[in-house]
Amino acid sequence: MDRIVECVPNFSEGRRANVVDEIVKAMTMRGVKVLDREMDANHNRSVITLAGDPGAMEEAIFRGIAAAARVIDLDAHRGEHPRIGATDVVPFVPIRGVAMEDCIALAQRLGARVGRELDIPVYLYERAAMRPERRDLASIRRGEYETLKQEIAMNPEREPDFGPKKIGKAGATVIGARPFLIAYNVNLATNDVQVAKDIAKIVREKGGGLPSVKALGFELKDRGIVQVSMNLTDFNVTGILKAFETVKVEAEQRGVPVLESEIVGLVPLEALTQLAAHALKLPALNVSQVVEMKLFGE
Amino acid sequence: MDRIVECVPNFSEGRRANVVDEIVKAMTMRGVKVLDREMDANHNRSVITLAGDPGAMEEAIFRGIAAAARVIDLDAHRGEHPRIGATDVVPFVPIRGVAMEDCIALAQRLGARVGRELDIPVYLYERAAMRPERRDLASIRRGEYETLKQEIAMNPEREPDFGPKKIGKAGATVIGARPFLIAYNVNLATNDVQVAKDIAKIVREKGGGLPSVKALGFELKDRGIVQVSMNLTDFNVTGILKAFETVKVEAEQRGVPVLESEIVGLVPLEALTQLAAHALKLPALNVSQVVEMKLFGE
Repeated sequence: MDRIVECVPNFSEGRRANVVDEIVKAMTMRGVKVLDREMDANHNRSVITLAGDPGAMEEAIFRGIAAAARVIDLDAHRGEHPRIGATDVVPFVPIRGVAMEDCIALAQRLGARVGRELDIPVYLYERAAMRPERRDLASIRRGEYETLKQEIAMNPEREPDFGPKKIGKAGATVIGARPFLIAYNVNLATNDVQVAKDIAKIVREKGGGLPSVKALGFELKDRGIVQVSMNLTDFNVTGILKAFETVKVEAEQRGVPVLESEIVGLVPLEALTQLAAHALKLPALNVSQVVEMKLFGE
Repeated sequence: MDRIVECVPNFSEGRRANVVDEIVKAMTMRGVKVLDREMDANHNRSVITLAGDPGAMEEAIFRGIAAAARVIDLDAHRGEHPRIGATDVVPFVPIRGVAMEDCIALAQRLGARVGRELDIPVYLYERAAMRPERRDLASIRRGEYETLKQEIAMNPEREPDFGPKKIGKAGATVIGARPFLIAYNVNLATNDVQVAKDIAKIVREKGGGLPSVKALGFELKDRGIVQVSMNLTDFNVTGILKAFETVKVEAEQRGVPVLESEIVGLVPLEALTQLAAHALKLPALNVSQVVEMKLFGE
């Protein structure tokens, strides 16, 4: 399998395991692998991670959205997490042999089909957004299902990109494309949380720091240390090593040593080959040079 | 596939493609993947790289040795590269989910079977060696096929670990286990080859430098630069980053900047996760955190 797309659909059901089972089952097909599945009862939401061949993924996610529309009723849904649909958000992520443009095209085709065949309003977001204000998920989800239901027919700002200008019990679905997100934390040997907060402010894009980096400073009370917690939203723009080194320099300027760092969850191989290339001054390191890719990836 | 062994058998045929085809075909089976295949006419030798499930690999390599014994006649073989057998050397390399001990046991089982069923003398080498002087391949291959033929029956030093104390047209085979070898070069921005030679002498194990590192200094004449060319024979002992940084420090002490480095051929994923862990002060980075491994490796 040399072309791989990841997708992390969020469904508005986090309590009834049999309902989530049914949705996952609908998405299970040849060419698609379910990598992870998380249910949150308080959020009343589940997050499924799938990856596979782009064509198979497109079909699988369509089936998942169709299944969720059958088994979830937004009028009866309560949970802490904001949502507008039974299938709430569907981000496609290029992993290997696939460009961002392919994922955008995939989001557009799927969105059109969901609108047409399932009669569900669809909004395109992030890199797939067709209106600049829709790049941001929060703005699409403003007021959640209940507000959208009132506004969708009359407010032109809320007109969907595909599908009807009315909303049923399945709500509306946000579909899009974005780079792989790496959750990356650096722990600092101090109990002064202000150090972590100050450094977070400096490194994050919002403060004019590293592009495609979000950062917050936290206290890890039980360990008596602090943490700069980052989301690297595009490791091709700012990679893990650059993030680490920037935090390290800032910490050392404050007389605080870096204790350790951690990658939370998954990391794409390309982020590691890129890191090795930077650390070793390699002009390039191709993922196909990795033994395991020779074995599995071709 | 969560357990992977690599094997790089060397066969004494590098001219007749149909003969090599037949041997490769004999090794082709479920659970085994042929990663690479190189024929050298001057050496009259071919090097095949395979990887897969340990059990399948054991059977596949046995079939390859049997096929080579049928189609190669050492009495008619001429080539520049030293050799003692139709199947000359068979190193097993642990890649993932397999310990060195497993590869040693595999080499021993296969060696016993080759001796018993194919009537071919077998010597165990490197980590699988049963006599300390047989760790070194060169000492086993001393005098090549022609000398061994004379000595095997009478010289107790040349008694095989398995199989008969006599040698037929298939010669003898050396089987063993060793860590993955990473070929790694660092290029320096000077045309003074003595700098590369001096640094090579310092970093290599032989000179009391980095353990499990072999190194030579070369001139890259066409580019007007020099190269420290290394073999990292066990990246768990000395990893790529350590090798790079040691060369870099030595070069800078001589006022010479590092231009770039290169990994020649394949590198196991674990060498990259280890590199990332060192560069980022990660307590650990598990290969199963790599997206591609989630997809293919389980």
